[in-house]
Amino acid sequence: MAVNRRDVIELAVAAALVAAAGAAYYADATPVLTFALAAIAIAALARLVGGATEQLGSRVGSSAAGVIQSALGNLPELFIALFALHRGLTEVVQFALVGSVIANSVFVLGLAFIAGGIRNGTQRFDSPRARMIATLTALAAAILAVPGLAHEFHTPAAAHEKTLSLICAGVLIVLFFLTLPGFLAGGEEGSVQHARWTLATTVVILACAGAAAAFVSDWFVSALQPATESLGMSEAFAGLVVVAIAGNAIENVVGVQLAVRNRPDFAISVIVNSALQVALFLTPVLVFASLFFSTQLTLAFPVLLAISLLLGAAICALVVYDGESTWEEGAILTGLYAVVAASFWWGA
Amino acid sequence: MAVNRRDVIELAVAAALVAAAGAAYYADATPVLTFALAAIAIAALARLVGGATEQLGSRVGSSAAGVIQSALGNLPELFIALFALHRGLTEVVQFALVGSVIANSVFVLGLAFIAGGIRNGTQRFDSPRARMIATLTALAAAILAVPGLAHEFHTPAAAHEKTLSLICAGVLIVLFFLTLPGFLAGGEEGSVQHARWTLATTVVILACAGAAAAFVSDWFVSALQPATESLGMSEAFAGLVVVAIAGNAIENVVGVQLAVRNRPDFAISVIVNSALQVALFLTPVLVFASLFFSTQLTLAFPVLLAISLLLGAAICALVVYDGESTWEEGAILTGLYAVVAASFWWGA
Amino acid sequence: MAVNRRDVIELAVAAALVAAAGAAYYADATPVLTFALAAIAIAALARLVGGATEQLGSRVGSSAAGVIQSALGNLPELFIALFALHRGLTEVVQFALVGSVIANSVFVLGLAFIAGGIRNGTQRFDSPRARMIATLTALAAAILAVPGLAHEFHTPAAAHEKTLSLICAGVLIVLFFLTLPGFLAGGEEGSVQHARWTLATTVVILACAGAAAAFVSDWFVSALQPATESLGMSEAFAGLVVVAIAGNAIENVVGVQLAVRNRPDFAISVIVNSALQVALFLTPVLVFASLFFSTQLTLAFPVLLAISLLLGAAICALVVYDGESTWEEGAILTGLYAVVAASFWWGA
Repeated sequence: MAVNRRDVIELAVAAALVAAAGAAYYADATPVLTFALAAIAIAALARLVGGATEQLGSRVGSSAAGVIQSALGNLPELFIALFALHRGLTEVVQFALVGSVIANSVFVLGLAFIAGGIRNGTQRFDSPRARMIATLTALAAAILAVPGLAHEFHTPAAAHEKTLSLICAGVLIVLFFLTLPGFLAGGEEGSVQHARWTLATTVVILACAGAAAAFVSDWFVSALQPATESLGMSEAFAGLVVVAIAGNAIENVVGVQLAVRNRPDFAISVIVNSALQVALFLTPVLVFASLFFSTQLTLAFPVLLAISLLLGAAICALVVYDGESTWEEGAILTGLYAVVAASFWWGA
Repeated sequence: MAVNRRDVIELAVAAALVAAAGAAYYADATPVLTFALAAIAIAALARLVGGATEQLGSRVGSSAAGVIQSALGNLPELFIALFALHRGLTEVVQFALVGSVIANSVFVLGLAFIAGGIRNGTQRFDSPRARMIATLTALAAAILAVPGLAHEFHTPAAAHEKTLSLICAGVLIVLFFLTLPGFLAGGEEGSVQHARWTLATTVVILACAGAAAAFVSDWFVSALQPATESLGMSEAFAGLVVVAIAGNAIENVVGVQLAVRNRPDFAISVIVNSALQVALFLTPVLVFASLFFSTQLTLAFPVLLAISLLLGAAICALVVYDGESTWEEGAILTGLYAVVAASFWWGA
Repeated sequence: MAVNRRDVIELAVAAALVAAAGAAYYADATPVLTFALAAIAIAALARLVGGATEQLGSRVGSSAAGVIQSALGNLPELFIALFALHRGLTEVVQFALVGSVIANSVFVLGLAFIAGGIRNGTQRFDSPRARMIATLTALAAAILAVPGLAHEFHTPAAAHEKTLSLICAGVLIVLFFLTLPGFLAGGEEGSVQHARWTLATTVVILACAGAAAAFVSDWFVSALQPATESLGMSEAFAGLVVVAIAGNAIENVVGVQLAVRNRPDFAISVIVNSALQVALFLTPVLVFASLFFSTQLTLAFPVLLAISLLLGAAICALVVYDGESTWEEGAILTGLYAVVAASFWWGA
């Protein structure tokens, strides 16, 4: 079966959203409007890219599919981060990366527990895969937090934050390629889809959506500073919360849906795996990419950000090891996320 | 059956202790003596209030009973904290609140493991309820720790500690009311008691004990500063250890007794639930109550206190997830508590 | 059976290595060469002492055997630390002690997971003993970290770091003697060996190896500063990584071998128990021993070291509770160790 009616509607909606965001940008609409429209358009494009990537993945070997999914599945976040680096907004990128990890492993997990718990009561899960992903995410978060802690608490290392960040990024990307095959072997259950589109259609859609994502990301980033200023939020908050949630909107919806359908193990795997990929893949790629920009992206995160990362990953591991979720647990997770986010609301 | 002989003895003992503490206070005895007598009288009153509250609870619906138990079960601590706030001792209150959480989740848990282990050997527990309470306590501790960490490590947030504390307290109290029903549903097994006293007797005892608790708390707080000074301990230590243990004496004894009777799951639930209620109920109530005093109670805890809170809650979760307790584990828990307490012994 | 051919070879190799290290030291070879030869000789002597200690242990009661093993099994590390204290290198000793805990509970555990995973695929383990040792190690690490955290984050305690260290060391050594019997009761399975050597042979070998270890430790420590300087590494790194790994080489090899032989539970017990003994036994003994030197060893570790200790112990507990190991998990553990070590590479 080729492109069907639902696909056409999805494509049309995405195109309309991109057009609206573009119109707002070129017509000098208020930054907040441009920012909001661009955020929604990015979510729509992320969904499109996600679907096309999956179809492409089903045509190649599982190992190549993993690289493709990690690379293209994070495409919108990658574009946003690159444009932000281009404008020298390295702090926003740091907050957006850590924000993606925290948003997935605390906030979205909390939403999934709430939705799943209200619909299905107490949910039990004990797949070794969900636990393993939570463990690996905690480990990756610990690696990511080291340069920030060293920068704050160990004077000699503070002078070498760029080198330490490169070492750290190197370790992470090596770990990504090492752990890739194992992940896919275990992860295919239930998620395999047969390619519906022809290869040509897939590639064309991917190329168009990718190009559109690049443009929209540029508009999004250009509106970021004035929009957050007029809303009174700090750049840190914008990165940690707004960029992180806009960039991960789709994975989030999928994860929550799985919890509602009473597949808690799979829901947790999808949600936490998304956090893990940001830590193991997107972050080191951006550190290396930033070497081509005027300002290098370091992993010397502001120390409260590094601590929040550790806290979020530890809480996530705790909650996954627990083996049970209730909507009350979900409520406390979202409460924790709200308090962490609130502490970054104020700017310097 | 109405008030029986044992009840009369208990009432007489409590009255005698209150009278002794009052005599010490009005006769200008040494502050240490007044302080010690008031602390013992508070423990006796806490026991009385606890019994009366349980009887009251058995007459109303389980959800109302939960609110009553949380409100009245913490009555002595509440009075002490209010009198301390009245005298501007906000730091003592901060330490007493965190101290209650740490004392329960590390020290009393350790005592229960020691007592239970010596009597019954290695104890196994795996009720989802005990694990769930430990998880929720870790989550609540993480929420409580955020303002203190933000105050220390994130300059912009430090200027807004009062607002951040109110947000945090608001989140906690909302979580308290959300999680209340679920807790009681699971918690009644084995703890239901039929009302022995008439409603009138219950209310009169409750009113008298409450009024007495108010007076004794005032004497306790007034003797706190001179007593701790003459003992060479800091106010921080007095709050963290002395106030926290005096205010929780009864729950502690009950928890240890349950461990001795080889009911480790129930023991853990009671002990850790006591920590959870301080975090979810007593703390936010005091933050809001402090708005009526000249000095606002903030949750911007001194950073070592916030770190100790996280450490204590994490260790508690670890030990509960472990699924087994031995008296050796209990010994290390009490050792950890001793070292944490010792680090706060010295004053500024 | 008395000393056999393999024993003779081992003795000869150790003697040759000691002679080589001595030659380098007295012939004023480059410090790096002396340092490297001494490190290898220490590992060989540690193996010899370990074997002799086990044989001695099989002749006495299990409780006495525990004390002997803890005392003599850590003999080389003890000598190195004593000579370093004698030269006033207290910081190196602090880093070496924490380094031993982190190296065992993160790096060696990672190596065991990698080796075991490549050979045997996913390894499952769920002995309560392995979990219990991981829990106790996390608790001991928390106790060890308190003085460092207090020194950094709590002004009044900072002035009393020596007293707080002594309290902490006192608690640890009491816990060591309390927990000793329980440990040995559970730990003998599979590790009991019949004494092959006569008692006289054992004692002579032990005495010679011990004396040699004392000399080699002196050469090792004397070459430490010039060698690390000429290699560009900080003293902190030398203690954390080089001394820690040289001093624990043998336990490490044994642990990894057990994982390869698909005995993951036993491997984890051996590896993590080695970390636990450093925390509960070696550290307090050195604190008390340092009272006889001009500079007292305190447990007020540099704060990044204290944080790394907590992080390592928490990650270790997480990974052990997980109940499964794969070589990917091992890879991430070694990656974390590499990043932590790297952050201490640079000196002041």
